[in-house]
Amino acid sequence: MSSDTKFILLTLGEELLLGLTENSHLSYIGDQLRQGGATLHANLTLSDLPEDIKTYFEFYWEKADVLITTGGLGPTVDDRSKDIIAEAFGEKLIFDAEILKSIEERFAQYGKRMTPNNRKQAYRFKRASVLPNPNGTAPGLVLEKSGKLLIMLPGPPAELRPMFEDHVVPMLREKSLLESGERYLQIRTVGIGESALETLLQPTLNQHSDLMIAYCAHHGFVDFRLSFSDPNDRYDDLIQLARACRRLLGENFLCCGHDSLVKVVSDILKSRSATLSTAESCTGGLMANAFTNLPGSSDFFAGGFVAYSESAKKEILHVPEDMIQQHSVLSPEVAMAMASGAAEILETDYALSATGVAGPTGGSDQNPVGTVFVGLHAPTGVEARRFRFVGTRNTVKNRTLITALDWLRRVLLADFREESDDTLRKESEKILDSLK
Amino acid sequence: MSSDTKFILLTLGEELLLGLTENSHLSYIGDQLRQGGATLHANLTLSDLPEDIKTYFEFYWEKADVLITTGGLGPTVDDRSKDIIAEAFGEKLIFDAEILKSIEERFAQYGKRMTPNNRKQAYRFKRASVLPNPNGTAPGLVLEKSGKLLIMLPGPPAELRPMFEDHVVPMLREKSLLESGERYLQIRTVGIGESALETLLQPTLNQHSDLMIAYCAHHGFVDFRLSFSDPNDRYDDLIQLARACRRLLGENFLCCGHDSLVKVVSDILKSRSATLSTAESCTGGLMANAFTNLPGSSDFFAGGFVAYSESAKKEILHVPEDMIQQHSVLSPEVAMAMASGAAEILETDYALSATGVAGPTGGSDQNPVGTVFVGLHAPTGVEARRFRFVGTRNTVKNRTLITALDWLRRVLLADFREESDDTLRKESEKILDSLK
Repeated sequence: MSSDTKFILLTLGEELLLGLTENSHLSYIGDQLRQGGATLHANLTLSDLPEDIKTYFEFYWEKADVLITTGGLGPTVDDRSKDIIAEAFGEKLIFDAEILKSIEERFAQYGKRMTPNNRKQAYRFKRASVLPNPNGTAPGLVLEKSGKLLIMLPGPPAELRPMFEDHVVPMLREKSLLESGERYLQIRTVGIGESALETLLQPTLNQHSDLMIAYCAHHGFVDFRLSFSDPNDRYDDLIQLARACRRLLGENFLCCGHDSLVKVVSDILKSRSATLSTAESCTGGLMANAFTNLPGSSDFFAGGFVAYSESAKKEILHVPEDMIQQHSVLSPEVAMAMASGAAEILETDYALSATGVAGPTGGSDQNPVGTVFVGLHAPTGVEARRFRFVGTRNTVKNRTLITALDWLRRVLLADFREESDDTLRKESEKILDSLK
Repeated sequence: MSSDTKFILLTLGEELLLGLTENSHLSYIGDQLRQGGATLHANLTLSDLPEDIKTYFEFYWEKADVLITTGGLGPTVDDRSKDIIAEAFGEKLIFDAEILKSIEERFAQYGKRMTPNNRKQAYRFKRASVLPNPNGTAPGLVLEKSGKLLIMLPGPPAELRPMFEDHVVPMLREKSLLESGERYLQIRTVGIGESALETLLQPTLNQHSDLMIAYCAHHGFVDFRLSFSDPNDRYDDLIQLARACRRLLGENFLCCGHDSLVKVVSDILKSRSATLSTAESCTGGLMANAFTNLPGSSDFFAGGFVAYSESAKKEILHVPEDMIQQHSVLSPEVAMAMASGAAEILETDYALSATGVAGPTGGSDQNPVGTVFVGLHAPTGVEARRFRFVGTRNTVKNRTLITALDWLRRVLLADFREESDDTLRKESEKILDSLK
């Protein structure tokens, strides 16, 4: 049934429309439903003005099988969604002493005094069941009506997410509205553009007339998703296709599934018991942060340096003074010295470095804003490359990170190419895993 | 007129609904409109299935004055929004040789060959005007119809954003659909909960019966926005209110406007010509990255260390071996030694350090996952504090960052408290700036 179930998400909050807060609920809930074999049908973001909620709530309630709302359950005057939906629904709101008790407990736990405005969070639809909120004060609510489900969740992600995983997903599974696996096979590529990718793959993919294909370009990546309208009997076809695409893509193949580039690089390093360090100037800690965002990164990541000033490059990375004098800090020589410095001090097999002009100021005719030298130290030697990235400071930092990671990935693949049979077997297992 | 203009945003792309890509267009376009005194009325995210686009496009076109669409203009088979909207509209699509020429130029510029599937991007509505896309191949389109505006923009942010700022904003201003300033006064607070904040401010804010108030809680912060339905004559009232709130909030007042915590801390450091370094274990580069994301951070940020392994703490931060033996790396002693080590090596006035268990593994009875020791080195001495954060690895890292930054902010305010008159004058200017 789940493939036909229409899930619609209503994210409430003027701060989302004013660009003050990212709508992280969309990607989170979309991801959760996808993992259960369902696709969110639509997401509407609205302010919490009563007349707007009324208009759109009725339109979407009519279209949805499961309507999920987020936000508008808090204690302050602008949190009005419960009242408005109760009115639109003709449902009665009642005061629930149990809810109040758990709100009071939450305040006691944080060592704070409950203010009277929190009492309004203890009201619920008379026929609704309550989803407990151990991470905040506003409980979630679930109402079954006309064969449909209304699920109201609190706005703060740290409250919504545990509630969704601990209560909403189990409930949706129990009602057979979610399954336990994806319906898509996603393949991630790096180093090939969207239209070139389609041209490359078309002859292979066109062999299945009922195959659905979707492309999605990110910074430096293109993903594509393959699916059949009935996935249950087509796992073998998907795996054959994945293998064929993998062969066509060569080193531009990143992975099947949803792993990030930094995850793929980290997995190769870990599987080879190789270690890594970083020496960053213009990326300013972004590389080290990307690696240390991964659980278990201490297995291969020894540490890093953010040598932002010229003296830091000399002091902490031992870049020779006369090298800086002769070539300036914006040079392949310094990029290489930084990488090798990090590798030597922290005794790692590999090291990445970056020195450049992230902008918006600091550029010159010779090295305009966006010029970056990336260095890569490997057991076989050290190398540096010059790049020119266009965009804001953060874009330049991010492009540098992706470029450095992909370079390291290609070097690691080349350094360990011999065990390819083993790799192929492991990759097939990974593809199966990503479909599970 | 602009306050009554209904801007509606239609973000197309199944990848958004599947949780594979963040909907960054909502926050970007919401922010752009807000800066022009307008509030996005609603944002609908939809897949690019023809029947869905048709259904919802008509519903929203009827409601909107300006309908902005993103995505679905690319070269691949799943990019269909132009065709579908043309059909729904009864508009004719024509081939535009000029557009094809600019697409071919783009490919030549990147040194790539144009594949035939890119030709479809050269079709446009017959009566539409074309927005050039110097950063990609799909141009934007603008169509005026029935006194309304349809603006179709490409999906990749690096293409959409320059197009929006260079073409869409000037066009909307020319049509008097955007102004040149915000309608809100936002105040950011840190260290006080949402309901306590409302209780604190209510007596002051209630003095204006026509004042609109909205609260928004983030991790560790609560923002509130104040506005009057007609802002033009009420600037003085807003400034009086901002000053009153600032006094009530004391050190929990972060700023008026949209500055981040790291920006506020950086501005204080810069205004005092004080310098900073970082020594990170569990945050793994997040602190350094936060500072170096700001343009001009090299004025005060000398650099940092990511001393992830125990040996790195000894090698690069000179933490004494016997201190680690006696207290372990999870101790206030080591946090202080790390901070002072960074300050000494990089010769900075201040230094922040963090050592802890970000998780998901590595915890113990004594130091469960989420335990973090933050160290702060200042000219007046060094201190460390123990915290316990609940959540995922990234949550623990982020809470550590916010906690460390806010601690440093409060120390900086105390260290430089004497010049308060000057500060008050500057703050009034800042409030005026944030309203401009």
